[in-house]
Amino acid sequence: MPERKGNRSAGDLRELKITHKYLSHHPGSVLIEIGETILLCAASIEERVPSFLKNTGRGWLTAEYSMLPMSSRTRVPREAVSGKIGGRTHEIQRLIGRSLRAVTNLAAISERTVYIDCDVIQADGGTRTAAITGGFIALAHLFLEMKREGKLATIPLTDFVSAVSVGIVNGSLMLDLDYQEDSQAEVDMNFVMTGRGRFIEVQGTAENATFDRQQLSAMTDLAANGIENLIRYQREILGDAI
Amino acid sequence: MPERKGNRSAGDLRELKITHKYLSHHPGSVLIEIGETILLCAASIEERVPSFLKNTGRGWLTAEYSMLPMSSRTRVPREAVSGKIGGRTHEIQRLIGRSLRAVTNLAAISERTVYIDCDVIQADGGTRTAAITGGFIALAHLFLEMKREGKLATIPLTDFVSAVSVGIVNGSLMLDLDYQEDSQAEVDMNFVMTGRGRFIEVQGTAENATFDRQQLSAMTDLAANGIENLIRYQREILGDAI
Amino acid sequence: MPERKGNRSAGDLRELKITHKYLSHHPGSVLIEIGETILLCAASIEERVPSFLKNTGRGWLTAEYSMLPMSSRTRVPREAVSGKIGGRTHEIQRLIGRSLRAVTNLAAISERTVYIDCDVIQADGGTRTAAITGGFIALAHLFLEMKREGKLATIPLTDFVSAVSVGIVNGSLMLDLDYQEDSQAEVDMNFVMTGRGRFIEVQGTAENATFDRQQLSAMTDLAANGIENLIRYQREILGDAI
Amino acid sequence: MPERKGNRSAGDLRELKITHKYLSHHPGSVLIEIGETILLCAASIEERVPSFLKNTGRGWLTAEYSMLPMSSRTRVPREAVSGKIGGRTHEIQRLIGRSLRAVTNLAAISERTVYIDCDVIQADGGTRTAAITGGFIALAHLFLEMKREGKLATIPLTDFVSAVSVGIVNGSLMLDLDYQEDSQAEVDMNFVMTGRGRFIEVQGTAENATFDRQQLSAMTDLAANGIENLIRYQREILGDAI
Amino acid sequence: MPERKGNRSAGDLRELKITHKYLSHHPGSVLIEIGETILLCAASIEERVPSFLKNTGRGWLTAEYSMLPMSSRTRVPREAVSGKIGGRTHEIQRLIGRSLRAVTNLAAISERTVYIDCDVIQADGGTRTAAITGGFIALAHLFLEMKREGKLATIPLTDFVSAVSVGIVNGSLMLDLDYQEDSQAEVDMNFVMTGRGRFIEVQGTAENATFDRQQLSAMTDLAANGIENLIRYQREILGDAI
Amino acid sequence: MPERKGNRSAGDLRELKITHKYLSHHPGSVLIEIGETILLCAASIEERVPSFLKNTGRGWLTAEYSMLPMSSRTRVPREAVSGKIGGRTHEIQRLIGRSLRAVTNLAAISERTVYIDCDVIQADGGTRTAAITGGFIALAHLFLEMKREGKLATIPLTDFVSAVSVGIVNGSLMLDLDYQEDSQAEVDMNFVMTGRGRFIEVQGTAENATFDRQQLSAMTDLAANGIENLIRYQREILGDAI
Repeated sequence: MPERKGNRSAGDLRELKITHKYLSHHPGSVLIEIGETILLCAASIEERVPSFLKNTGRGWLTAEYSMLPMSSRTRVPREAVSGKIGGRTHEIQRLIGRSLRAVTNLAAISERTVYIDCDVIQADGGTRTAAITGGFIALAHLFLEMKREGKLATIPLTDFVSAVSVGIVNGSLMLDLDYQEDSQAEVDMNFVMTGRGRFIEVQGTAENATFDRQQLSAMTDLAANGIENLIRYQREILGDAI
Repeated sequence: MPERKGNRSAGDLRELKITHKYLSHHPGSVLIEIGETILLCAASIEERVPSFLKNTGRGWLTAEYSMLPMSSRTRVPREAVSGKIGGRTHEIQRLIGRSLRAVTNLAAISERTVYIDCDVIQADGGTRTAAITGGFIALAHLFLEMKREGKLATIPLTDFVSAVSVGIVNGSLMLDLDYQEDSQAEVDMNFVMTGRGRFIEVQGTAENATFDRQQLSAMTDLAANGIENLIRYQREILGDAI
Repeated sequence: MPERKGNRSAGDLRELKITHKYLSHHPGSVLIEIGETILLCAASIEERVPSFLKNTGRGWLTAEYSMLPMSSRTRVPREAVSGKIGGRTHEIQRLIGRSLRAVTNLAAISERTVYIDCDVIQADGGTRTAAITGGFIALAHLFLEMKREGKLATIPLTDFVSAVSVGIVNGSLMLDLDYQEDSQAEVDMNFVMTGRGRFIEVQGTAENATFDRQQLSAMTDLAANGIENLIRYQREILGDAI
Repeated sequence: MPERKGNRSAGDLRELKITHKYLSHHPGSVLIEIGETILLCAASIEERVPSFLKNTGRGWLTAEYSMLPMSSRTRVPREAVSGKIGGRTHEIQRLIGRSLRAVTNLAAISERTVYIDCDVIQADGGTRTAAITGGFIALAHLFLEMKREGKLATIPLTDFVSAVSVGIVNGSLMLDLDYQEDSQAEVDMNFVMTGRGRFIEVQGTAENATFDRQQLSAMTDLAANGIENLIRYQREILGDAI
Repeated sequence: MPERKGNRSAGDLRELKITHKYLSHHPGSVLIEIGETILLCAASIEERVPSFLKNTGRGWLTAEYSMLPMSSRTRVPREAVSGKIGGRTHEIQRLIGRSLRAVTNLAAISERTVYIDCDVIQADGGTRTAAITGGFIALAHLFLEMKREGKLATIPLTDFVSAVSVGIVNGSLMLDLDYQEDSQAEVDMNFVMTGRGRFIEVQGTAENATFDRQQLSAMTDLAANGIENLIRYQREILGDAI
Repeated sequence: MPERKGNRSAGDLRELKITHKYLSHHPGSVLIEIGETILLCAASIEERVPSFLKNTGRGWLTAEYSMLPMSSRTRVPREAVSGKIGGRTHEIQRLIGRSLRAVTNLAAISERTVYIDCDVIQADGGTRTAAITGGFIALAHLFLEMKREGKLATIPLTDFVSAVSVGIVNGSLMLDLDYQEDSQAEVDMNFVMTGRGRFIEVQGTAENATFDRQQLSAMTDLAANGIENLIRYQREILGDAI
């Protein structure tokens, strides 16, 4: 196996740090740092729903994801300048939305829309999985605050959620790839799982190679283990409240 | 298990029909019909590459996917009218592109771009997987024609590719979901695999439920079997030529 | 006169073929083939009108026209990708809409909007006139179905409509130009006429030449004759129902 | 026949006034007033051509048309605000461009592009035909100036061009409709003709009625006569220079 | 000091000419000519307000500014063609809007929106200040007409408004810069002031030089004097009516 | 005078904190905190210039400004989602660009473009002036790094730059307004000044009130004093290096 930065073994996560209420006016905001990847995740709620949900009594949750131009090693042009949201961004924000909706009781929030804003301050691999892991914490904090304020009777979450990447780099399986590893990977997978160890999303992609059944299975093991650690961390932060 | 239309068993594909050279001026065009799902897949090539490939000697392959407004039961507004390509379309055309690039020797086509146009004439579930299965045949025919014309020395394909969906509907696992089944599914997975039985893409999504390790494994079995049949069919059409 | 493909004489139409209910869920859908030109025309109706018709009790009919990227000999980029609908498309869809509105009793459909979707599968000249001829059949079938379902008391059509092109190619007048002829034409005219032989639209354009009164008159004769044949064909399909 | 404003008879043009060099820095600019319709037409030239003409030695001519928001009785929103050029605008500017290209020797201007900007200051019917009639004068003045400056050896125009509208209003045929007449017309036709009395464009449209062969012929007579007068006026202004 | 065109001294305005009711259907329209700078300013009112004012009982005033493509010495591409309103246009129309809102009693017009359309016919420096000076006259005329028609009880204006530019050209201070002077200026300032001599907007910009406190003060003197003259002229036109 | 948060007197700045190299891969990046206003300013350089500078040997500097959706008390929709950059954003990024170009020797950087990205993480008033003050430090650090790497012979800056806001709140003049103060201000001014105490930009705006000469002068004093303090701080950070 190629040596990993910081002497990580294949199944080690990078160091994780969560700063709660990073934005002083928004209880549902967290700064999540996973190694050198840094995102600001902020949850907010508005009193309206998309038209397909009007008069259903159900709410909605949607996510937006964006990279600051200098979050990357090379400056990334702003999507607001081109006037178009690119395919990668669309793909990622749809993934974040689906993942968090899977554990949210949308009937319990009634006709309101939750926004999960995930802005990448520094990108060093794993930004979409960090957005899910951090977005869940932001969401939980938003709901906790709403309960405190009497706007919700119970926390409308059915489980914890975390996400992690796994990959095959030069033939070796590795958990939680950083940018350097990711750019050399033959196979790149993202797993989203619940606190009960069930799958919400499994996405595996091979551009320059393919993978077999045995590798799929081994990557799944690695991911399940990593997510267990992430969720343990989430439990520590959020406690028994949810 | 709920009864399936046409008395299909859980592991049965729908009927598959390929009309080659559906467009009389384009050898790389096929009409693919999978049950009531109908797509026109057409491969073409242009003498230029995206800027990130200029002077690399390598080519590119990109896919575009679109639904005709009346392909669906309810009219779908045109993306050209709104002026924006939606997230679902982006996601699908990126998937088709990655899947076909995985078996294309891009160095062998030199600085040219292959376009795979996938236009849905009638949508009855599984349009994205049909686009990959049909797109591969269109691509192979384009290359065969180019070889015939002396524009290529060999067929720059390293393997066959097919794709299929699998899902869990009311607790039952099923292969190749039609629209009716898909709209009731708890879990929806898409697999893209090669002629050698290796994975290119694995995408599983749960919006209203989650799934466990055993179900993931069973869905993988079902898909692998379905894809084997699709590739057998592709081999019959394309023969030993590639 | 230059020899025409298929030994057509100057006043001959190309072979015409209509496949009704091409889309299995849409009674108002037809595949129209005129020589090698192939379009899918589909009529549908929605329960709303543009704002300028609100509370007037009147309905509306609008048309959308699009070429599939590979319908042409050379790939045509998608308008959804550029995000802008081009001038030619605008011009054509306005023409289709005006032509069909001229025989539709918009008061009789009340505040509903009919969409006529015309998608060019293969373009070999005369796509805009084929869209009108085929669009009318799709529209009639939609109304017939609505009457059958009790949603309309009578068929809200006041007459038949067909359209045809005429041109001057190397000094010779010709009916129903194919792509080859069209690209060499000095003058290109499109006529839209009713079953009673009256004009709805007359559009003549000369880019590389001009034409005189006598030629205008002769082209009008040729078109009137061609449209009579098209409408005879429409009557056969639609019968006395309308 | 309904009485016409200013006691015009059916075949009378409205009063025409041309102010040459309305913009002090642009010799190819004219203010054209036809009754209460006022347009600013300005011709300019740039040292480049659209990509399809590169290395052909031929030039291009294109027209842009726009209505000032308050040119109409009711304020018209700016197309720059919506970010989209509407179908009517597209249709009109394509018509102006085709009409003026029909008499311009594009090979003689070499690889340059002429822009004809037609901005409607006040709209009282007939803006598109005024744009052609006025645009031609602007174009001729631009070429005259270029010849004066030695940038052109001869005036690259092959003929004069004018345009006029004709219509059927409450059953009566009329030349050069004003807004009031136009809004009540059953049939609206626009003719573009040359100084030699030949046709460049014939466009007839019926939305609420249809018309027959005899009416088409009578409208053509009326238009031919009107255009003869417009061209006589153009000759007076431009003299023998072209 | 460099000699100024027309022998103007440093503190002289260019000749000013106002043509009221330039558009025959719009009482609130004026053509303003300041030297060779020509704008059409037109005020209109609509029965609705932006959403942030709904149910507040207050109205709004907004301005739109645009340059005709040939208003400049070199053709300026239309913003409608690019589909985007540029930064300079945004900046100017916001300035016009703020300036006129500062003297308009928005509560007195109730929930209606005033549009001030400022279209530059010929640009020779000072178009934004001319838009404010002329826009105010258009606005006053609109209100006078509305009062005449009984739609307003009193004129909802609290003061007069005019604007002027000042600059430093080759070290010399000058009032009301024309294009030639503006393009050589080291410092460019725009002042918007009321009839009572109070400031609404002060905007000074230095791109190629900087300026000191003493120069700021001298430019302010020059502007205050120029505006006094402009307002005297406005008073002559509008009289005691407002 | 109304009491200010943190017991600030009228002429006091809020607390200022600069974190250099906030982004680990970009030496020209700073996090600037002014009270509760937090921005990330990052300078970068690319090897190309806008077309109007090609072959002039001169470089360019441009700024982009954006607010994260949750930087404000109420969520601000992303401009990338609407596809349009709003007027306020345009105005601000043009101001930042002009201010920094005023002290940059663009000839000395040759044909390269400097980007100043200013992203607002938390907005509590004064974001545009913070962007200028922080953007200058980012720019200086970028140039220092380029000199260190031998890409520049000297630091191409001619002076220091800082910016500050001043306003009149309930009749009292105040320096460096926070959001609360700004939202109640009758007059809002922004000053951009150099290390030598000269003006680059002066912008004063009154929406609900007007101001007189004496107030303009007093606001200028307050600003000049505040900027002196900001520049002292910049000198401490950047030292004699520039």
